Formats: sequence, C-alpha cells, structure tokens
Amino acid sequence: MSAEAERLARVALSRLVEPGHLPTARLVAELGAVEVYDALLTRTRLPQLHDLGPRLAEVEPRRDLEQAHRLGIRFVMPGDDEWPSGLDDLALAEPLHGRGGVPLGLWVRGPGRLDAWSRSLAIVGARSATTYGVQVAGDLAAGLAREGRGVVSGAAFGIDLAAHRGALGGGGATLAVLACGVDRVYPEAHRALLEHLAASQLVVSEAPVGAAPMRVRFLARNRLIAALTAGTVVVEAAVRSGALNTANWAGRLNRLLMGVPGPVSSAASQGVHQLIRAGGAQLVTDVADVLELVGSAGAHLQAPARGADRPRDLVTTAQAQLLDAVPIRGSDSVLGLARAAGLAEDTVVVELERLETLGLLERRDDRWHLTPAALV
Amino acid sequence: MSAEAERLARVALSRLVEPGHLPTARLVAELGAVEVYDALLTRTRLPQLHDLGPRLAEVEPRRDLEQAHRLGIRFVMPGDDEWPSGLDDLALAEPLHGRGGVPLGLWVRGPGRLDAWSRSLAIVGARSATTYGVQVAGDLAAGLAREGRGVVSGAAFGIDLAAHRGALGGGGATLAVLACGVDRVYPEAHRALLEHLAASQLVVSEAPVGAAPMRVRFLARNRLIAALTAGTVVVEAAVRSGALNTANWAGRLNRLLMGVPGPVSSAASQGVHQLIRAGGAQLVTDVADVLELVGSAGAHLQAPARGADRPRDLVTTAQAQLLDAVPIRGSDSVLGLARAAGLAEDTVVVELERLETLGLLERRDDRWHLTPAALV
Repeated sequence: MSAEAERLARVALSRLVEPGHLPTARLVAELGAVEVYDALLTRTRLPQLHDLGPRLAEVEPRRDLEQAHRLGIRFVMPGDDEWPSGLDDLALAEPLHGRGGVPLGLWVRGPGRLDAWSRSLAIVGARSATTYGVQVAGDLAAGLAREGRGVVSGAAFGIDLAAHRGALGGGGATLAVLACGVDRVYPEAHRALLEHLAASQLVVSEAPVGAAPMRVRFLARNRLIAALTAGTVVVEAAVRSGALNTANWAGRLNRLLMGVPGPVSSAASQGVHQLIRAGGAQLVTDVADVLELVGSAGAHLQAPARGADRPRDLVTTAQAQLLDAVPIRGSDSVLGLARAAGLAEDTVVVELERLETLGLLERRDDRWHLTPAALV
Repeated sequence: MSAEAERLARVALSRLVEPGHLPTARLVAELGAVEVYDALLTRTRLPQLHDLGPRLAEVEPRRDLEQAHRLGIRFVMPGDDEWPSGLDDLALAEPLHGRGGVPLGLWVRGPGRLDAWSRSLAIVGARSATTYGVQVAGDLAAGLAREGRGVVSGAAFGIDLAAHRGALGGGGATLAVLACGVDRVYPEAHRALLEHLAASQLVVSEAPVGAAPMRVRFLARNRLIAALTAGTVVVEAAVRSGALNTANWAGRLNRLLMGVPGPVSSAASQGVHQLIRAGGAQLVTDVADVLELVGSAGAHLQAPARGADRPRDLVTTAQAQLLDAVPIRGSDSVLGLARAAGLAEDTVVVELERLETLGLLERRDDRWHLTPAALV
C-alpha cells in the first residue's frame, strides 16, 4: 500500500465524514484508510458507516490536494515526518459528545512544523472574556513564549485572541486550530490575525479546505487542541463555556489541566472555579505555576512564594521568641519579658540589646517596646 | 479534688504562663492543674517548667475570679457544661511555632453559650483586605448566619471585621477570639464592635483579664479559632498573612480548610491561591460551596452550577446532532445536513421542521440556516 494511495484515501474520507467521526476513525485504525475508501467505492457494506454514499462521486482527492497545494496548504497524516504523535493518544481516549478518534489527517497552513508542539500549552477560555481574563491570558502566553513554550488556541474572540497576541508579543510560537477550513476566516474580525499566523506561524484544521465552521466541528476541534499540547490552561469560562469541552478532553487525554482563578463575583470565572473545586483542574496563577506543573521532574520546582524579607526574618529563634513576647502596644520590663518569653533573665538582657541594634526594639525608662520596623 | 480547687489552679496557671504554653498543657493533662500548681507553690522542681517562680507570690486566683465576675467575665474550663469539646482536639494536634495544647480555660464575656459553636465556621483573612475581600467575607458571613451557622473570627481590621459585621447583618451569631484580655480593646478602632459583641454575642480569650495583645498571644489565639469551629474559610491572605497560621491549625486539627480565590493579580489573594495549589485548602466561592463541604453527608450536595436554559437545551439527541451540523454562517441542504449529521434523509426532513417550529432553524430556498436563538 503506497503512501500516496493512503494519502488520497484519507483526503477522500476527510471530505466524506465530519471531523471526529468515531466509526470512521475506528474502521481506518482497523482496516486502513485505503481499504475503507475502496469498500465505499465498490459499495461494499460497512455497517459502521451510513449515508456516505451519495457524495462519493463528487470526491476527487487528487484535485483537493492540488488545490490545497496552490493555496499553500499541506495535508499531514499519520506516518508523515511532521505528524504530531500526541494526536495518536486520541485512539485510546473515551469519546465526548459522540466524537473522538485520531483525525484522518490535518490540513496545515504556515511555515512552522507540526511535530514541534508536544511541549506547548493550550490557553483557552471564554469568548466573552473580561478585561481581567484578557490581561491574564495575554501575560501567560507571553511568559510561556519567552520560556520557549508554544501556545495553542482556537482563533475565537476573547481568551483565544489574547493568547495568540500574547505569544506573538512574547516573540514565541503560536498555533491556531480552526473548526473551519484553514483557507477560511472565522470570525471575520480575526482576518488579519489568521493571515499573520498562516504566513509566519501555523494554522491547522481537521476539516477540509472550504469547510464552514459548525458546532460539531468546534467540538471535534477542541480535542485536537488538548491532544496537541502538554497541558491546557483555562482562563475564564462561564459554566456553559466551550472551553470546558477542551478541558474535558485534556482530562480524557491525561494532559495537565490547569485553571486560572478570578473574582468569585465574576461569572466568567465560575466554570474555572467549578473545574478546580471538582478536582479536575489545578489552580495556577502565573507562568511559574504552569511550568512547575508541566516541567520535567525537578526542572521548574519553585520556592514557595514568600513576602519580602523583613527585619524580623533576620533574628535568631531566641530573639524571635523575645520579640513575640513584647506587647504590641506599650512596653514591658526585663523581668516581664523573661517570663513571657520563657527565657532566662541574663539571656534576655543580652538579646534585648541585640534587638535594639537591629532597630526592632527601643528602651525607655528600663522598659522595652517594639519599633515600627518590628511591626511590619 | 474539688472543681473549685481545679478552677483556682487553672486561673493561677493562666496568670503564670503564656497562652499555648505546651509544657504546661502537657503537665496539666498528665498530673492535673491542682498538682502542677501545688508543685510550683511548694517549689517542687518540674523540669518542664522554668521561670514561673518569680511571680508566684503575686498570683491571687480567687481575687482574679472575683474581679472578672464584677466585669461580667467568666472562666470556662474543661469539665464545665459550657466547655466546647472541640478544644480537646488540641491535645493531639502537633504544635506550631512551639505553641499548642488544650487551653487551661477560656475567659468569656457575653450572653452566648460557648458550647454551641461546633457547627460554626471561622472566617479569617488579611487585615489589609481589599474591597473585594471585604465584600466576599461579609456576604459569606451573612449567608452562613442566615443558614444558622455561627461565625468565628478575630477582631482585627479587614476580613475579621467584615466577617463579624456580615454575621450580625445576617441576624446570626458571631464570636470574637482575642489575643488580649476580654476586658481590653484591640484595635482601639473596634471598641464599638467589641462592646456590642460582649453585650449581645461572645468575646473569648485564653489570656487573662488585663493581658495586653502580643504576637505570641495571636499565634496561640489562632489555634482556638480553628479548634472552636467545623472549618476555616480564608478570604484573602498575602503570603505572610497571619491568617495562614489559623489555616495551618485548621489542617492540623482535621478541620475543613477552605479558601476563596480572587484575581491572580491581587497580592491579597496570593496566600489563598498557594493554599489551594498545595492541596491544603479547598476552593469555595459562596455559601453553598461551604455548606456542601461542611454539611452532614448528603445534606447540602448541590447541583453543579449551570447556565440558564437555552432553546437548544430542549431538543432531542437527534435534533441536537442536526443542529450541530448546520453551518454557523450560511446554510445547507437536506442532503448536506443528513451527511454532516450522520442521519437518514427522511429523519432529517421531519426533524428540520420540528426545529423550525422551535424557532431554532429557518428555511430559505430549500436551504436551512440557524436562527439567532440557536446561536445563544
């Protein structure tokens, strides 16, 4: 079976069935694309497939490939050098909304290589994002880009747009996965973005050239965003957001699933909070949090965040014990402090003077009180 | 050993050692308060205790109790009807910053009963709270109060104040645990609040009457807030916040530990996010979330939050499949839709008309397109 025949069969099938059509993916995995396509051409009954016949005559895979080539679009399929192995995980993942499976191939536009994204991260979220969400998604994408991590997203309004822009602004790589053909623009407002990505980055789709955006294609598309990346970060998602569909796929694919919290008063963060509460997503607040989770073992472990050093961080245990015993308002004597701190009087006398030197205590009339620096 | 002797011994010891003085708590648990106090009075050497001697002569527990009584303050100790059994859990909890153990007793002011708080919740957080944190803490406390859950907090600026105010506004019970004597006011700005709580609710402290606020007493106080309640909710805490000390105690005591998220750009939420990330605290966004976690099994399980019903929620599976196949922009024929949806043509004809009746699809020139209602 030549690769050429395999390619033509996959292109033909991708014209005949919708993205994420599970029975087709399973048949192809079992029999091979050439055999499935031949069976259709020879009207052999495949009980798993129905209604594929009517348009068979219209399908011309060779013409499709030539037309795509003229538009600068290539078809990447399993076995090709550029095939991203992460997509093969879809063979084992449970379907969602009846869709799933390894795609027959991807239609790809742009100079980037498709197999270079296994360390990338998906940033997805609400189309109706808030200023907060847009800011956070953009910062996150820019930071990941600066760390050499590619960013994958859809091309929708809101978080998707902020993610692509952030990654570009961070001088990094970004990939848009579309629900329509890669020659089409949706939404129209993102024409300039999509043309820029096609010229300098990557735009991919499972749907063939010319395909219109439709809901079923968005649902199938979301599984690719999850499968192409090491993890998915959800930034703002209302409880019905499509971003939760991508999140669900990340879970099914054993990818890292992360969520950025927001104000509990913001409906745009409600879906993310729900994901975290349910234990599906891990809470992340910045690039360091994300890298700590996705980084190879030990590579990005970060010290727990802590406040700036304060004068009282510099003291010894005994001195801290003594400081803790000084009234917050007012003052106390050496005897009183020795008792409160549980320290011997002579120790207290020595340590009080050291704390005075550090600027943490002051003496007045043989009584000791805290300085403002000690109260920080 | 009479209860009277026991009470006098505990009052005396509470004058001699700081709140949360672990060696004393352990000695008292082992030998009884009377024996420990007698040993001190007779100068018997107790290697665990030191420096308690000097002020022994000044301690007059009977006078202390009388003076407290005149101020409307009672001393509640283990064995008293009013003793909150939750405090006994402190005997088993690991110490923190060297402090811990069951308190010798609590000095209590106010008409409420101290043993009625096992179902209550602590709401704690930053003194330098943001408007957001104050709003969330107040709403949470008011909602819990309306559900018959008492609220426990300190009496500090910020989240503590918002929690007490919210609980009072919700017509509920609220309890302030102080680091100074219950006859004292700290901070001074909260005089009216503390007087109101002492007159109509409860104000308690482990520190004796007259004791000044000091850091060691705050650290000891925090364990009581955690131990008195069924769970602790942290609303805003910077990475160095004292509220995290209370959170730590809640964890040590196997109490529920919950955190309210906020904007990742807010330093005031950073400590809470850290708690949730580390797996110590569960994310909660409102009263329902808290009640679901603390409620008795099954009592407060809530349906997952979902958006308002949309017309497309009302359709059958086949209709949904069909709707998903209609292009988001443009239109398609019966044949095209049958193919995209994977449905038989005659089924599609019937369902298209039903969807037209539901106002989700419209026909033009034998092609079907989505209505605005279908796009919601």
